[in-house]
Amino acid sequence: MPNFHITGVIPPMITPFTHSGEVSLAAHAANVRRWNEAGLRGYLVLGSNSEAVYLNEREKLQLIECTRENARPEHLILAGTGMESTRESIHLSQEAARAGAHAVLVITPSFYREQMKDEAQVRHFQAIADESPIPVLMYNVTKYTGVNLSPRAVGVLSRHPNIIGMKDSSGSIPQLVQYQEAVAEGFTILVGTASAWYPALALGVAGAVMALANCAPAECVRVQQLFDQGRKADAEALYRRLFPVNHAVTGVYGIAGLKYACALRGYEGGFVRSPLPELTGQEKAEVRGLLEKAGLVG
Amino acid sequence: MPNFHITGVIPPMITPFTHSGEVSLAAHAANVRRWNEAGLRGYLVLGSNSEAVYLNEREKLQLIECTRENARPEHLILAGTGMESTRESIHLSQEAARAGAHAVLVITPSFYREQMKDEAQVRHFQAIADESPIPVLMYNVTKYTGVNLSPRAVGVLSRHPNIIGMKDSSGSIPQLVQYQEAVAEGFTILVGTASAWYPALALGVAGAVMALANCAPAECVRVQQLFDQGRKADAEALYRRLFPVNHAVTGVYGIAGLKYACALRGYEGGFVRSPLPELTGQEKAEVRGLLEKAGLVG
Amino acid sequence: MPNFHITGVIPPMITPFTHSGEVSLAAHAANVRRWNEAGLRGYLVLGSNSEAVYLNEREKLQLIECTRENARPEHLILAGTGMESTRESIHLSQEAARAGAHAVLVITPSFYREQMKDEAQVRHFQAIADESPIPVLMYNVTKYTGVNLSPRAVGVLSRHPNIIGMKDSSGSIPQLVQYQEAVAEGFTILVGTASAWYPALALGVAGAVMALANCAPAECVRVQQLFDQGRKADAEALYRRLFPVNHAVTGVYGIAGLKYACALRGYEGGFVRSPLPELTGQEKAEVRGLLEKAGLVG
Amino acid sequence: MPNFHITGVIPPMITPFTHSGEVSLAAHAANVRRWNEAGLRGYLVLGSNSEAVYLNEREKLQLIECTRENARPEHLILAGTGMESTRESIHLSQEAARAGAHAVLVITPSFYREQMKDEAQVRHFQAIADESPIPVLMYNVTKYTGVNLSPRAVGVLSRHPNIIGMKDSSGSIPQLVQYQEAVAEGFTILVGTASAWYPALALGVAGAVMALANCAPAECVRVQQLFDQGRKADAEALYRRLFPVNHAVTGVYGIAGLKYACALRGYEGGFVRSPLPELTGQEKAEVRGLLEKAGLVG
Repeated sequence: MPNFHITGVIPPMITPFTHSGEVSLAAHAANVRRWNEAGLRGYLVLGSNSEAVYLNEREKLQLIECTRENARPEHLILAGTGMESTRESIHLSQEAARAGAHAVLVITPSFYREQMKDEAQVRHFQAIADESPIPVLMYNVTKYTGVNLSPRAVGVLSRHPNIIGMKDSSGSIPQLVQYQEAVAEGFTILVGTASAWYPALALGVAGAVMALANCAPAECVRVQQLFDQGRKADAEALYRRLFPVNHAVTGVYGIAGLKYACALRGYEGGFVRSPLPELTGQEKAEVRGLLEKAGLVG
Repeated sequence: MPNFHITGVIPPMITPFTHSGEVSLAAHAANVRRWNEAGLRGYLVLGSNSEAVYLNEREKLQLIECTRENARPEHLILAGTGMESTRESIHLSQEAARAGAHAVLVITPSFYREQMKDEAQVRHFQAIADESPIPVLMYNVTKYTGVNLSPRAVGVLSRHPNIIGMKDSSGSIPQLVQYQEAVAEGFTILVGTASAWYPALALGVAGAVMALANCAPAECVRVQQLFDQGRKADAEALYRRLFPVNHAVTGVYGIAGLKYACALRGYEGGFVRSPLPELTGQEKAEVRGLLEKAGLVG
Repeated sequence: MPNFHITGVIPPMITPFTHSGEVSLAAHAANVRRWNEAGLRGYLVLGSNSEAVYLNEREKLQLIECTRENARPEHLILAGTGMESTRESIHLSQEAARAGAHAVLVITPSFYREQMKDEAQVRHFQAIADESPIPVLMYNVTKYTGVNLSPRAVGVLSRHPNIIGMKDSSGSIPQLVQYQEAVAEGFTILVGTASAWYPALALGVAGAVMALANCAPAECVRVQQLFDQGRKADAEALYRRLFPVNHAVTGVYGIAGLKYACALRGYEGGFVRSPLPELTGQEKAEVRGLLEKAGLVG
Repeated sequence: MPNFHITGVIPPMITPFTHSGEVSLAAHAANVRRWNEAGLRGYLVLGSNSEAVYLNEREKLQLIECTRENARPEHLILAGTGMESTRESIHLSQEAARAGAHAVLVITPSFYREQMKDEAQVRHFQAIADESPIPVLMYNVTKYTGVNLSPRAVGVLSRHPNIIGMKDSSGSIPQLVQYQEAVAEGFTILVGTASAWYPALALGVAGAVMALANCAPAECVRVQQLFDQGRKADAEALYRRLFPVNHAVTGVYGIAGLKYACALRGYEGGFVRSPLPELTGQEKAEVRGLLEKAGLVG
């Protein structure tokens, strides 16, 4: 079992679907084997970019198993197991452990937004951490949930013995600093978007889970290597070169854009599930143009 | 099979949970049998107030079956079957039909909010309506989804032969008027909150699905009866008397407040599922006070 | 001096600017004399539709004077005198009284939004009411201010002897009902948008300040007359006929759209001040089309 | 006249009011003379923290003059001259130049938010820059305006010969990077909040206008000096030490908190103008506690 001082780059993996909308485990396995060469720290199965909200439990567990089978032993396998209810989150965390995950990443519940105050969130995560056989990380992603986990709540949760970290995809660097001040020693903060990768490194964050690592894994890893070698100007330059691509595949063009970028770089992108829209021809040309400009395709 | 010109009051039923968090079908059956006496048009299983996002598929289907078995033959059974993906929504709609629902109410998908533009919503609902063996209604509830279905999209969807109506819980009366102008003849608009009941009646809306009908079903029905009898001042007065209770059980105190109000009126309220918080003693006293003031408890 | 039980329709008057951006008092006077024939209750100078935030103090006072001179004696003259600071609001209210206004309409301050809690708002309005020589009405318009005056705050303020009413342009009918429950007897609630005119009448609101009354004053008055005569179906039908025009001139096309609609109906529309954009030719054709469809131009 | 490659720290100065609400120019002059010792690059008169929306034109010009008289010759004097209308912004920019400002900082107009699209903003700023006798900077501060200036619009504006820079107080580091990519060479981007100071330095931003520099000017300057000397760990440590104070005086406690912090550090804080609330005794104790913890008061 890997240790849990998590550093390095982890892709929140896309899920390739066939034209008829089935999960293609073969395509997923091929992707994992290819990512194995890129110097990544591990894999996140069932993150937001996996279209996890469109997957049923059987599909979810198969994806975990398939990832575990195709990853290298040294790779850390995180699985997104947060559901709206505490009990379903516990159940899925237990199943994920059985399927081979090393730790679980649990998104903040958000359907009953006005009731999901700090106190409710803290009880939710503590109950999951109490019952999960593997360590827990929180996942804060305001743009999808409309909920923000406060630094105070994160501080409290960071003291639970089975909660080891969080992924922050709020995009707010000032709040990232507040998280750092609030948490217990040894607690891992993972930055959740490549748009904050270089500034986060400058603030001492050493781990990242970011969509861009699906289609540009070695480049995301390289930013950190350069930074760690003291070649900060080179790290920053590479970060800036990747920035417009990241903006496209996480913002403007959504998951279909990310999958198309993966396909352009030799991965199995596959289709999205409905109701997510596929890219138009025009949009595909724009994504390709951005990758060309960034030197990611020839 | 009931006809589908839907008028009258339908409660989006609460789901009573035991202390250990299990669905109590016995308690649910008892509630339905009691509601049967109140002059309601039918029942909505698996609406937002049912904590549907906390229920698994087996629980959902059991609740539909239990409702069907305990309702009267003339009652219309609607089931909430909207999931984030089109395919899961179709699957659940088909299962709901098998379990005895007469029509399905499908919430707008919202996780990938920025991608859920009109066009994606229209394709989603059309695909479900194509495959559902029973009629479909859309469900617009911005406060939970952060998404708003435009009058233009509703207008297009109202022309699908298997889409018969919508529940609008946006709370916007001006938009309600725009929906009315946009839709095809015979399309049903149900108002989704008791706070708009009297003004909606004044605008010719004749059906409602509203949380307050869980704990004050006869009173909600009575507002409409008085209105239809031309006793508008009496209808308005009753609406105003119920208003503060509605505000409490749908806003301030959430589902736990609604369940407590149900318990105070002799229904099986039961517990909420975590992470929803239970009421404090102080909050219970406040809810009771509001029901007393409205003459709903002695 | 007019009594202050305000009923009837009041237009929040546009301000006609010349091509070079000067206020045209002649055009304004012509508009007032024409509106004098329409059965209106009075006039609001310096409301949101007047581009008041673009006017300096001299221009504001001239517009009040010009309105007073051209209105009939029985017309009530309201003047928008809310500024961000309490002291400037008091100063302008005093000047407005001197210039001939009968009462002032004071918008909620909003620049330091997070500090503008109920308590700050209450102190602000009370201080203005203490010092204003003429009665005060509050103005709640969330879409411009990002601030909402709570029913509780309005309830407190309604007890001040020099605060006689409010204009609510939030567009929320449920909140309108809450305001009605909260306020002291004799306090006037004016609905602030034609999109809520008929439902507001159905709820006992008897006064309105609405942009549409600039270009369709007699029609807005007629809705109320029909309603008061018990011809509710006719009132509702007229309201529905005007609705799309109102949506256009208050939403989609903004003040330039409102001014163009005024011009089409024989008023002096004039230009908007920069940075507000003028309509394109295409947009003008769309506005004209809406007025034609509503039977407002031939 | 100073050159306009703006680097270094500039405080958006508070305006000290007397108990009766008058501007105290004597107190302001005393503050400037004290700030003169702190190594600051210059001063911003009439920024958001000056309560500029509460000042009339005479007060504004006096504050500019007073600043110019008391600052050192090498200090850059910026003046906030953005009004809602283009014409008033031009007028005030011309007056500010006459009163001694070296450049003007113009906030995005925002009252008619939905009409204030990129195109309207671009025309507004270009018209001001055309007419202003001194250089123009844009000011983007979404939390007050609800408007965000897009990187594309900033890119266009950065090419105007009389527009030399912008202050970005959006707090978004990813957007800051996009601005950097979009603008013309030589265009200055000033970061508008101390919460982003260290990460902004790490991204090559070299100038800042930040509230914290009112009460901790030398410390804000010191962060940059340490950074420029290659002592990044020390710079980061100091930034982290100041962070909680900044959070308090710009967020939680507002301008009254900032003024109290200034008073604790020997400046003339003075009162706020109504409707801004003064601090309670409890809040004062909290602010003092934060300054003590940061080592800013003994």
